[in-house]
Amino acid sequence: MEKQKTLEEVGKFGLIDILTKNFKSSKSTVKGVGDDCAVLELNDSEYQLVTTDLMLEGIHFDLMYSPLKHVGYKAIMQSLSDIYAMNGTPKQATVSVAVSAKFTVNALEQLYDGIRVACEQYGVELIGGDTSSSMTGMAISVTMLGTVGKQNVVYRKGAKPTDLICVSGDLGAAYAGLQILQREKAVYNQGKGDQPKLAGYEYVLQRCLKPEARKDVVDALAKSKIVPTAMIDISDGLSSELFHICKNSNVGCKIYEEKIPINEATGEVCKEFSMEPIIPALHGGDDYELLFTVPLAQYEQVKEVPDVAVIGNIVDAEQGLMMVSRSGDYVHLKAQGWN
Amino acid sequence: MEKQKTLEEVGKFGLIDILTKNFKSSKSTVKGVGDDCAVLELNDSEYQLVTTDLMLEGIHFDLMYSPLKHVGYKAIMQSLSDIYAMNGTPKQATVSVAVSAKFTVNALEQLYDGIRVACEQYGVELIGGDTSSSMTGMAISVTMLGTVGKQNVVYRKGAKPTDLICVSGDLGAAYAGLQILQREKAVYNQGKGDQPKLAGYEYVLQRCLKPEARKDVVDALAKSKIVPTAMIDISDGLSSELFHICKNSNVGCKIYEEKIPINEATGEVCKEFSMEPIIPALHGGDDYELLFTVPLAQYEQVKEVPDVAVIGNIVDAEQGLMMVSRSGDYVHLKAQGWN
Repeated sequence: MEKQKTLEEVGKFGLIDILTKNFKSSKSTVKGVGDDCAVLELNDSEYQLVTTDLMLEGIHFDLMYSPLKHVGYKAIMQSLSDIYAMNGTPKQATVSVAVSAKFTVNALEQLYDGIRVACEQYGVELIGGDTSSSMTGMAISVTMLGTVGKQNVVYRKGAKPTDLICVSGDLGAAYAGLQILQREKAVYNQGKGDQPKLAGYEYVLQRCLKPEARKDVVDALAKSKIVPTAMIDISDGLSSELFHICKNSNVGCKIYEEKIPINEATGEVCKEFSMEPIIPALHGGDDYELLFTVPLAQYEQVKEVPDVAVIGNIVDAEQGLMMVSRSGDYVHLKAQGWN
Repeated sequence: MEKQKTLEEVGKFGLIDILTKNFKSSKSTVKGVGDDCAVLELNDSEYQLVTTDLMLEGIHFDLMYSPLKHVGYKAIMQSLSDIYAMNGTPKQATVSVAVSAKFTVNALEQLYDGIRVACEQYGVELIGGDTSSSMTGMAISVTMLGTVGKQNVVYRKGAKPTDLICVSGDLGAAYAGLQILQREKAVYNQGKGDQPKLAGYEYVLQRCLKPEARKDVVDALAKSKIVPTAMIDISDGLSSELFHICKNSNVGCKIYEEKIPINEATGEVCKEFSMEPIIPALHGGDDYELLFTVPLAQYEQVKEVPDVAVIGNIVDAEQGLMMVSRSGDYVHLKAQGWN
């Protein structure tokens, strides 16, 4: 009898390939499984975008340090980020929540307050959902619908050699914030009665607890008449996302360590934890920045887009995925597996 | 300080009212929170339907007696049932699954096999989803999209006095099946080594483990040119669903116990458990039948629709929600609360 494979052995992305290999596509579906959103025919000029995310207490958030209002806010940001990664405009969302009996009505009101504020700020309408009980902890599922002009939709698959590789904002900050929260939680759990030391860490904590989806970047690209050749949001770390773009576009990449934007506050935290800042930038999760490629000819335009850095360029597939380190060495990039 | 309310105190439907009271509607949303599906503008002749469901191990299914293939199948049936309850046609679905490390790839393949078979049989395309890890057990979130002609959409709110109240199939069978499964699980857990006694219970077990959404009923109604005045699917028991229709339509109802369809097999199980069969029919969950109202003038047409029973009629709101028992007594119906 064949040995049964474990989830660790196949990895998250291998698992998705296995599970979806028998699914059939139809005419109305432009793109099914395998991008930030599914893409459906909507009308002559637009596609509809659909994305869904599942967040679980203990895996995706820890109520010991995440206020429920922030949990709700972040749940919406995740889905928004997927819509923006297709160069789209978010429109509607449904939210389903399962909770155990330990939660009060007031606690759920805080959660929904965060959901409502996020939806209002980004112009998304909450159109439905479901509540149910759970055995332990909280589960939140968000589905978001959006639209995108057929001329403007951006997939993971369009990157071409010589294209510039760009990222918005800075990377690794959410991971740095998480390290602080986990350290203070450990101290608290030792029962020493100390108040958590969070002062001075505001930037990384906010990036971890209350991230913002990059609507501003998508708007700025539109204003500069730039339609990226490929785009993805950075939820699993730069390295994993580069793998997705390169695999789907059948190309390689060369990025420069010194060009990767890392906030000073992130660097400070890394120093405290004796960690190279490039590690969370490459492999930390939850940044919700955008990674995209633009034709080399648009260098002058993209340079003018606020809060966007050019970190390298696309190369032939045979050259693989490389990072040129600060010391000039060529480092092969690795994708993260199941986490 | 005001005492914080518990979930039990407000009940599931009270909770949804509290949580959604601050949500705003826009032009593109025809119907938001508060029906089986949200209803969005799609094009000149059609609306788009959106529904989302969250299923958790230990709450909605028990892997001790539910094969994973059936769990996947049933997850799709739940959402299909919501689309049919709007008189719509299901089109696409996304599925997100969270699992703990105890599950093998093979187990997840079985789950997805059930999802795929259900989607194929009902003409639904699986367009995306997400997998992640969980601390304990499995969580499945399904979002389904569908369409419905603007002339044909049916809400919970259109029932009028004198309308006939109709249900498809028979009621209480899934609850009866669940009683058998729970009894055999308890016997097994006592460690007596007996094989579970499931022979002879096939009908109720199938209704519990592998329900079918009533596409056939929606198709038959269309063929008979009947557009119900109100419709809902029966997932929380007839009594609760009548409450939803009556509340949304601002009417009352009078149903007749003797008209409520209950399968003989369900009656047999109820006898074993010394339970009146009307109890699971009124309050048992997971039947996935359709409850709908049609104008009195369409009595002749609806009588000809296969597998549909007329169980009473809509009355003025002042008369409340009543059931005429077999002995001729008037019984006030109760809605189920949080479960």
